[in-house]
Parts: sequence; C-alpha cells; structure tokens
Amino acid sequence: MSKTADTVKIAIVGASGYSGEELVRLLLAHPRVNLVALTSRQHAGKALAEVLPRFAGHPAASTLRFSDASVETLAREAQVVFLALPHGVAAEYARPLLSKGCKVIDLSADFRLKSAAVYQEFYGHAHPAPELLQESVYGLPEIHGTAIRNARLIASPGCYPTSILLPTLPLLRAGLIKSTGIIASSLSGVSGAGRKAELPYLFVECNESARPYSVPKHRHLSEIEQELATAAGSPVLIQFTPHLIPVNRGILTTLHLAPARHFTTENEMAELGAQIEQCYRAAYSHAPFVRLLPPGVLPDTKHVTHTNFLDLAWRLDARTGRLIVMSAIDNIVKGAGGQAVQSLNILCGFEETAGLI
Amino acid sequence: MSKTADTVKIAIVGASGYSGEELVRLLLAHPRVNLVALTSRQHAGKALAEVLPRFAGHPAASTLRFSDASVETLAREAQVVFLALPHGVAAEYARPLLSKGCKVIDLSADFRLKSAAVYQEFYGHAHPAPELLQESVYGLPEIHGTAIRNARLIASPGCYPTSILLPTLPLLRAGLIKSTGIIASSLSGVSGAGRKAELPYLFVECNESARPYSVPKHRHLSEIEQELATAAGSPVLIQFTPHLIPVNRGILTTLHLAPARHFTTENEMAELGAQIEQCYRAAYSHAPFVRLLPPGVLPDTKHVTHTNFLDLAWRLDARTGRLIVMSAIDNIVKGAGGQAVQSLNILCGFEETAGLI
Amino acid sequence: MSKTADTVKIAIVGASGYSGEELVRLLLAHPRVNLVALTSRQHAGKALAEVLPRFAGHPAASTLRFSDASVETLAREAQVVFLALPHGVAAEYARPLLSKGCKVIDLSADFRLKSAAVYQEFYGHAHPAPELLQESVYGLPEIHGTAIRNARLIASPGCYPTSILLPTLPLLRAGLIKSTGIIASSLSGVSGAGRKAELPYLFVECNESARPYSVPKHRHLSEIEQELATAAGSPVLIQFTPHLIPVNRGILTTLHLAPARHFTTENEMAELGAQIEQCYRAAYSHAPFVRLLPPGVLPDTKHVTHTNFLDLAWRLDARTGRLIVMSAIDNIVKGAGGQAVQSLNILCGFEETAGLI
Amino acid sequence: MSKTADTVKIAIVGASGYSGEELVRLLLAHPRVNLVALTSRQHAGKALAEVLPRFAGHPAASTLRFSDASVETLAREAQVVFLALPHGVAAEYARPLLSKGCKVIDLSADFRLKSAAVYQEFYGHAHPAPELLQESVYGLPEIHGTAIRNARLIASPGCYPTSILLPTLPLLRAGLIKSTGIIASSLSGVSGAGRKAELPYLFVECNESARPYSVPKHRHLSEIEQELATAAGSPVLIQFTPHLIPVNRGILTTLHLAPARHFTTENEMAELGAQIEQCYRAAYSHAPFVRLLPPGVLPDTKHVTHTNFLDLAWRLDARTGRLIVMSAIDNIVKGAGGQAVQSLNILCGFEETAGLI
Repeated sequence: MSKTADTVKIAIVGASGYSGEELVRLLLAHPRVNLVALTSRQHAGKALAEVLPRFAGHPAASTLRFSDASVETLAREAQVVFLALPHGVAAEYARPLLSKGCKVIDLSADFRLKSAAVYQEFYGHAHPAPELLQESVYGLPEIHGTAIRNARLIASPGCYPTSILLPTLPLLRAGLIKSTGIIASSLSGVSGAGRKAELPYLFVECNESARPYSVPKHRHLSEIEQELATAAGSPVLIQFTPHLIPVNRGILTTLHLAPARHFTTENEMAELGAQIEQCYRAAYSHAPFVRLLPPGVLPDTKHVTHTNFLDLAWRLDARTGRLIVMSAIDNIVKGAGGQAVQSLNILCGFEETAGLI
Repeated sequence: MSKTADTVKIAIVGASGYSGEELVRLLLAHPRVNLVALTSRQHAGKALAEVLPRFAGHPAASTLRFSDASVETLAREAQVVFLALPHGVAAEYARPLLSKGCKVIDLSADFRLKSAAVYQEFYGHAHPAPELLQESVYGLPEIHGTAIRNARLIASPGCYPTSILLPTLPLLRAGLIKSTGIIASSLSGVSGAGRKAELPYLFVECNESARPYSVPKHRHLSEIEQELATAAGSPVLIQFTPHLIPVNRGILTTLHLAPARHFTTENEMAELGAQIEQCYRAAYSHAPFVRLLPPGVLPDTKHVTHTNFLDLAWRLDARTGRLIVMSAIDNIVKGAGGQAVQSLNILCGFEETAGLI
Repeated sequence: MSKTADTVKIAIVGASGYSGEELVRLLLAHPRVNLVALTSRQHAGKALAEVLPRFAGHPAASTLRFSDASVETLAREAQVVFLALPHGVAAEYARPLLSKGCKVIDLSADFRLKSAAVYQEFYGHAHPAPELLQESVYGLPEIHGTAIRNARLIASPGCYPTSILLPTLPLLRAGLIKSTGIIASSLSGVSGAGRKAELPYLFVECNESARPYSVPKHRHLSEIEQELATAAGSPVLIQFTPHLIPVNRGILTTLHLAPARHFTTENEMAELGAQIEQCYRAAYSHAPFVRLLPPGVLPDTKHVTHTNFLDLAWRLDARTGRLIVMSAIDNIVKGAGGQAVQSLNILCGFEETAGLI
Repeated sequence: MSKTADTVKIAIVGASGYSGEELVRLLLAHPRVNLVALTSRQHAGKALAEVLPRFAGHPAASTLRFSDASVETLAREAQVVFLALPHGVAAEYARPLLSKGCKVIDLSADFRLKSAAVYQEFYGHAHPAPELLQESVYGLPEIHGTAIRNARLIASPGCYPTSILLPTLPLLRAGLIKSTGIIASSLSGVSGAGRKAELPYLFVECNESARPYSVPKHRHLSEIEQELATAAGSPVLIQFTPHLIPVNRGILTTLHLAPARHFTTENEMAELGAQIEQCYRAAYSHAPFVRLLPPGVLPDTKHVTHTNFLDLAWRLDARTGRLIVMSAIDNIVKGAGGQAVQSLNILCGFEETAGLI
C-alpha cells in the first residue's frame, strides 16, 4: 500500500478494543492517512503487535507503539484524533483536543445526543461537557454529509442506530411511513459487547445461545429517536429489541413499519412499492456504502462482514398492510470503525470510499 | 433405564432426520415405551447405529434396524406410530394405519390445519386426505390436552408455532391483548431446515451469518393464525418474520403485542402487569414444561436446549404502551420430538413428563 | 423419573461450574440417587435454578438450594460427597469428610497422583494432604473398577487423560506398542477452561480460532504418565499437545504410536491389525461406555457429546509403520461428571450404566 | 483504490468457490491488476454480485460478469489466467492457454507433482498432461521465488502443504531435524472442503463437532513429501493427520519433529534452540508473510484469518527430546488465493506484498 505524499496525521485514543482494532486496521491501509500515535493506559509502552498480534508484519507495526501520550502531545502530533473509549470518558479528551485545534471523531455515545437531559435519562449521570453537544455532528455520512465536512467534533453513531436509521430516515422524511408504531428487532454479534472479561460473554455462554437483552429500554434508543424525530419533524418513540447471537460480527435488523397510506388492492400495493423503491433510490443511489438488494434477495450479515456496506431489502405484506425493512451491517465496520473513517474521508475532502473499498 | 412391564409398542416412520433422531433418543429412554420398529426407505436394512452413530452402545441399538416395513406390518407390531416425514407424504401412512386401529402422531404439517383450502393456499397443492382434517387434534398439550387424550390422529405443532402460540393464546383468551397488530420475530437454529444437503445450510454459509427468510409469508403462519383465531373467536392475521442464526438448536421468539387496555400511569401499568402475570399463572402454573421466568430474567435458548421446556418472560413498555413477550424452546424437542412424546404420554395415560424430565 | 426406595444420599461441593452443572444434571435424573445438598460459597442461599437456570422446572429444583454447609453438616446428610472444586482446595474437604465416614469422589487433580513430589513438580506447590495419595483410587472405571468398588476416596480423571489413557493402556499392557515415542494431540472444547471470566475465553476470542496451549508441559501429563507407567511396568514420557477449538463440549484425541513389532508386508500388517482388534475387544467388549467404531468410521465428537461414551478407532499406516488411534469424548461427561457418576455406580453396587444411558 | 496505469490483465476460470471468491476479492483490490474476465459454466451470464453478493457495490462489480468464454477468448483478453477448478480439469485449460502465450497460475493439485506415477497413486487416474509436470513450478514463494519469477505455469500449493512445508523445509535443509519420524497434525476450517452441497459439511454436522478424516493417507501427502524430499536430498515419508473443526477459515498445524542432535543438558537445549532460531531467521526474516512469533506466544488462527501471513512458533521439549513447531494460516488466503497472488506479484515483478497488505 503506497501512501500518497498528501496524508493527514491521525492518532487513536483507546485502540485496544474491538472497534479500536478495526480502526487501526483501516487506517494502516488507508492511502491518505499517516497513523502517528496510539494511546492506551493499560498497554502504554507495548508495540502494536504485542497488543494486537494481527498487525505483526505490517510495515508500520514495527515502529508503532502504544503510549500514554498527553493531550498536549497528541494535539501536537495529530491533526485528527479518534476516540475509541468507553462511554463517559471521551469528554476529558475531546474538550482540550478541540481547544488546541484538533478535529475529533468520537466513537462513543458521549456526543451523539443534542440534549444533556436525554443523556442523563439514558446514561444515568450528568453530561460531562454539555457545551459541546450543540456543535457536535452526528456522524451518519449518508444523512449528515455536509455537516460532517465542516465539523470539528463528530460523534460516530452506534451500531444499532446505523442499522435502524439508514433504512428508516428516508421513508420518514418522504412521509411514506407513520412515525408511530415503529418496531425494530435487531440481532447483534458478540463483539458489540466489547473486549470485556465478563461471564455472559464467555464462549460457552454465547455459543449455542440466542437471547434478548435490555428490553424494553436500550440506551441506543436515545440517539435513534433523536434522529427519527428530526426526520419526522415531531417526537418519535420506537420499540427496539436487541438480541445477542453467536457470531463475532454483524447486526441484522428487521423493522416493522406502518405505511402512511393504507393499501388493499394489488394496484395500491404496487404503487406504494414503487414509491418506496423510488424513495430509497433517491436517498442512496449515490451513497457508496448502501446497497439496495435486488428483487428476491434478503440481507445476510455474511455478505457485509469486514466491509463498510449496509445491505437493505424491503417487503410489503398484503395480508397485514405492513412494510418490513431489513438491513445488515458489520457492527465493527459500518457500525463503528468504518463509519468513522467514512466521516474522516468527508472531513478531509478525500474520496468517501478511500481506504474502505 | 429399566422399563416397566406395562409398555406401549411404538414405531417411527422416517427416523433419520433431526426430529426423528431426537424422537429415537427420547423413546429409547422412555420408561413406558417399547420401540419396536423404525422405517426408512433410504436406510432400510441398516442397524440403528449405522445411520445414527450417537445410539451405538445403547442396549436397544444392537437389535433395532431400519426397515421398509409395510403399513400392514407396522400396524401389526405397533400400537402408536410416529410419522417424521417431509410435508405431503404423511397422509399415505396415516389413513391406512388409522383404519387398522393404530394411533398416529404426525410431526409434519399435514394434519395441522382444519381447512383444506388454507392448506392449499399455503402448501401449494390439494390436501391428500381432507377427510381426516376435522378429526385430527392439534397436539399442543398445554392447550388441547383433553382432545389429545381421546385422539386417534395427533398433528404435532411446528417449532415456530409452539414458540408463538404458548405465549400468546392465554393473553388472547383472557382479552388482555388485541388480536390485531401481533408481530412475531423468531430466530431459529439450523436444524430447523432439516438434514438436507443444500448450499444455504452448509457450515460456511451459516456460520458468521444471520438472515431473515420467507418474508412475509412463511407456511407456519397458517397454523399459527388458525389457533390464534380459535382463541380470539375471530380471524387473526399476524406478522411473522423468521431468521436463521448459527446455532444447531433453539428458537427464540420475541412478540410485540398491543394490550387491550391503554396504560399511561405507573398504577395502570402495575395493574395490567398483575393481570398478565395472573393470566400466565392460571394458564401454566400446572403445565410442567412452561417456565415463567422470575423477575429480571429473560429467555436464553441455551437454558432450554436438549429439554422440553419453554421459557417465557414479558415486559410492559411504559414509553410505547406495548407488551413484549419472549420465549425460548429447543426446536427439535419442544418444537418437534419432545412435544410429540408429551402428547404420547397424555394419549397413553402416562405421567405427562414421563421420559422427558 | 421415579426413584426407587433404595437410594444413596449425595452432596456436591462446588456445583456451579460446568462440570458441577453436569453432575447436578446427571444426579437429578439418577434412579438410585437422592441429591440432598449443594454447596457454593459464592451462591449460598440461592435456589438451584437461580444459579443454573437450566434446572428450573425440575421436580427437585424448587427445594434444592445452594448452602455454605459445613463439612460436619455434609457428613451428617450425605453418604457420598462429590467435590467439584478448583485444583488445590479439595483436600480441606476430603480429609474431614473421610474421617467422618463419607465416601468422596473428587473431580479435581488433587488426588490423582501417587507421588507428592510429582504433584509439586506439576502444580507448583506442596501437596496439602500427601497421606491420602496412596489410598486414593484413580477413578478410571474401565481400568480400576475393582479398586473403585472398595475405595473411600476416588480421584476422577481429567478429560484429556481419559481420552488418552483408554486408547493406550490396553495396547501397552499387551506389549503391542512401544512405551516410547507416544505422541498425543488433543482438541478440546472451551468448557474445559471452566466458567471463568477471562479474556482468552470470550466468545470473540475463541470463535473462528484454533490454538495450541501449554506446550510442551501441560499439567495433565503427570497423571497420564503415571498410569501409562503402571501399564508399561516402567517409566513413560509422552508428548502431549492440547489445542483449544470453538466447541462447547468435546475432546478429540489423535495418538501416534509405534507398534512393538515392525511390519512391512500386507500379511504382517493384517496380523498386527488382528492383534490390535483383539486386544481392544478383550479390554472393552464388556465396557458399556467404550465404543469400538466399525470399519470405515472415525470418531466425531458430535456423536458423544451429552453422553458418557468414548468412541475409538485405529488405523495402521503401511507407509510409516505407525499406529494411529483416535478417540472422542464429551469432556464434561466422560471427561468429568459422567465418569464420576460411573464410579459412583460401581462404588454403590449399582448397574454401571445407571443414570447414564 | 486507484489503479496505476501499469496493470496486468487477469482472468479467473472457476471463480465461484471459496478460493475463487477470495481471489476475486484480492484481485479487485490489487493496485497493479485489471480483472478482465471471470468464467463459470454454471453461472455464465450472471453479474459478479449475483453470484457473490459480497462484491455488490464494488466499482468493478457492475461491469464484471461471469462468462463461458473459450480458451481463445481468454488468451486474447488476459495475460495471466488463474485456474480455480476442481482437481483433474485444470489441464484442459492450462495446455492451450500456455500454447497461446498466457501465463497460468493453477490453484488445483494438477500440476504440483513432478511425477505422473505419484499423481496416479494419490489421485487414482492417469495425469492428463504429464508433459507439463517438469516445467510447472511449485508456487511456494518463500522457497521457489526465483523459479516463480521465470515460470509459465505455477502450481499454487495446497493449504495443508503450505502450513507444513514452511515450518519444516528450513530445518530439513539445515540438517537440524531428522527426515524420519515427522508427524503433522492439522486442524482445518470447513471452507477447505469447498462450496459443495454434501451432508458432512452441513452446519449442524460441523458445528459442535471435531473429527479426523483421510487417515492415514491424505492426497496432500504426495506434494508435501515431494518437497520435503527435495530439501532433505532423499525420500521422506511423513505422518499427516488432518482434522475438521468448526471454523470457516484457518489451518492450525502442529509438527512433532526429531532434532538431528540429541540434547540432554540445559546448555545443549539452549544451543539447539539458538540454531533453530537462527535457521528460521535466515530463512524468513526477509519473507514478508512469515511471522516468527515472539517468545511466549503460540499461533492462533484468528490472528491470520483474512491475511496472507503464516504465524510460526516452536518449542523444544527437554523431557522428550523433541521439537514441536506450530503454524497458523488462513487456508483460503495463504493456503489458496493469497499465495497465488503472491506468486503473481513475483511473476510480474511487482512488490511481493502488492495487494496483500
């Protein structure tokens, strides 16, 4: 992978989790990026490949080491800093980095909400940097591309929200579905739980297991409903049921939606179908990472893992009058590291697909 | 396992699939059963353990062989015959076996529907023995126990229907939920697809994969809606979305239901919750295979695999006013072979749990 | 499952790990056993099903609770006590229980070795109760059945040793293989690592992973070599390489052995083959849990999981002059809980297969 | 991915299997390659993404279609042709393509052996193009780099051979190990069996299963022993036992080797260890895809999947006097498509890592 002369200098704070590892992979291979620093309190001093053996042998791996670099050092060395930290600690990095002129792309939930009150309701503590919430841009490139281009602080969306919002927002904006009664049922791979030594995520506890969790009020609801409300122009409450299934990567989301207009005849169904198809094409035919599946094909996470694509299919049900939309992403790529790189590309004026296809 | 003197003689037709194998396992260990015949066209002449190596070493395995026994022979040797055949071929066995005085427990879909027209709509061909449809009993023991006791022909329910009907029927009968707007999202292990050499069910195609299928009109809808309509006293149409996930066994179903009465205050929610809890207790506190999970616990397929239990939990969502009910079963046990044995126990006047706990 | 009047009272100390859970499952279903006590420091006071949800709904589950019962209480209530504890802590229970007249079946490594010095070499600390080592019986029922019948203290073998010793000991005793150059390569399911919240055993770290570990000196070597030496009549050193693979249960062992007599011609190979077959038949044709696979069939862990069987096949290689023997067991059943119950059956004079088939 | 002006035109014959799919992935992303044709008898006429949905959305995917192009057409359009066909049919393509001036890289076993007699022994039929066997180069780049550079016909090695030969050949050449008594035990992911609809490779048959197969004479032995013999300067017979484990990708090989010189003291062991380390460094410190793992680290397939790396570690066992070497590769990358691309890079004078890191 030859790098062009014209690269941007990047640091990653907290690179040893699953999302951080994917970020490292993508940025090492990115033609316009120079990865200059990785920080980790736990692993400071270790070589990249010692912590993440997958990267041994990569040209950059021999020189890259984890450090406990100060914010000052990071700000001096890097132009853009990715934060891949647990929820609640990103603010202590974001504020000083921004003040020193860095751009920040945060993969946590800390800057996704506009309302500090909603943050407190869903995350159980006061927001540590409420003054940044209005400025922060929700980093869903297919929706907020223009804002991303001009942002200082990008809050990269969560994996579930990405899989729910991209299928839903265009329909809602176009008035093709009601904003009430939205039901999202999602299946997630175990990497979504992070690299944490906890009993429920042991191999034996997850293999040959399928289970719902966080029913009925998962934290990601807050950002999902915020974005849906913006699209609908009024508050939206949805039902969201996440499930854990034994795969490493992938989210499969099935949405049950109520079309705004009732359909009973074949003709009405065909007409509505054409409108939905047209709506999605208008929204995504130029979006390089959204794939509208051909007739007869339904999403399967195995076709999107290790990629930044979201696969999307929909069906109208003449029996129930309902619209079913299904999406598949890799929770670690389009649901985390890949989407953050996609935002970086827009932010830096690179090709949106640079380093991602 | 010592058998009592007082046993019933059993034959299985088509015992080499996954459900058939589980039936063999259960019946070999059953204290009141004498397994006298196994038939298979493909494997006729082979010893049990040659076809199903798991059973080598079992005391009965050395003498049990697959045969291509005629219906006459089966009827002479066995009092009850299980049919574990693909859909559409059970009728050719059921009719003559019944006429010769056998009782028949069919694991296929052939005798689950009361209406030959609905059968034709969902299975695409005329029913081969419509005269048996009225007599046949839908073998869901928790619901149709009395009818099962007196049946000649039992149609054992499918795996998805079991996981959807047991959580839903009591609520519907009690008028606690609306009969409209029912949404069922299910995750199934791959054994549900049967032991068939087809590309989509290869290990590499299923592992690290999650996918919906048969959207929006899966065949099992017909029997689900038939039973729901009986409970509701009027026709019911539901939304059902099955998904394939990489486990061998297990079905996890999440139901989104609309309570009949609107609730807004804490008090109203608590009152409705008490009614739901009371309804489930009334329905299932004496049902040995339905476990109402304690507060704070959600179903996980790993706790029911290799058992005949259905685990059930529910949550009211104050935000959306909806009721979410979740169930877990082993698709091959409570969803197939185990449930059929449970019906056998009732039919023969054994303890309902004989050979199953 | 109706219990006969004539039961033995059993307690389990440390029942919340994977082996302990399997023990509970087997003993609850055992026709001659009355499970009277379960202890766990961590879970004292909790109902059985609260800790191990799989057992909810079992008749005994409503009354059985975990306690922190003293050794005195255990000795008063139970005739036989199973210890399912981590290595190193069994002695503090075994000694007082024995002195109060209980029989003890220990699933840890604490009493498997005859030599306290070897224990210290492999386990890194002095043996806590060296005076019990001579009395303790290595609980491999196919080999030490008579001693088990008369034992007070049974040390149930480890999972790897079982999978290696049963295929090897008869050949060694018969002088058919050399005692030098034995190479055992084993694949183990992740439950072998226990229910411990450690990073290497997370789902994401084990799924899509295969890896050797503890090379070249795994602790189980000590008991393997002890038993091999007894059979050979002289010290034996073997090569043992364990691997972790992404299954919940199962051990597959492949042994590379050197026949005592060189063979080059077809005739010599056939003759040697007949001797090996004869040797295995003599050793195991009456052993209810060892299955000598028919010609053309190799072991597969999926045929032994959830059973107490060991499947065994062998091949002579005319090209290399070597004998390859392969075995499969369920590490949690024949490799732990099931084997311990098999010893219990012998100890109590029950049928060897009681509660196990 | 911007392509440089200076690209080579490539065709793939038989691109719909797992190895073919990986080849497509690598070549689409390769900066020096222009993928001009894909052929498949079964899929002729279909778009790339219709057959391999993973590639939908890739810039080249909209124009690339499967064809049943004749050898003439292929030879006109492409400079290098990859053959990803089942064993036995590559010859009918290779001969005419070579005669028309194409270079051919064959992923099957058809041109790996120098001896038509050995081919017949192991593959059961006469070789279809024996005149090409001497010219063909065994495409293991770390060993035959120079020959690959000048080859017309490259026989890319099998997955098992790669995982066995790279760890063994340097030791054998250096005389550090004996050429007798080599034992290789390998674990392979299910993709190694190909995309074939056969019962043994169904998800339910492979998940929770571990099993040896093709014992004692797997076909890959022929090419392994050929290459070992060349390194040793005399015939070599090895023991090779492959196992199937439930992962999609990956081969883990454990080799048991006999050092040429006996070691007993600590000093002798340290000295031998230094020689082994030195030998591997000399062989591979400039090989971009062989990673000699640091002390204390053993190979794990999860660190090499989706990469072209081979990870290697070794241990001396003071107890047995044996050397154990362990390697891990992705069977579909370094064991198939990636290795073939590595050969392409050498053949075309590209950077050896082009398109692979």
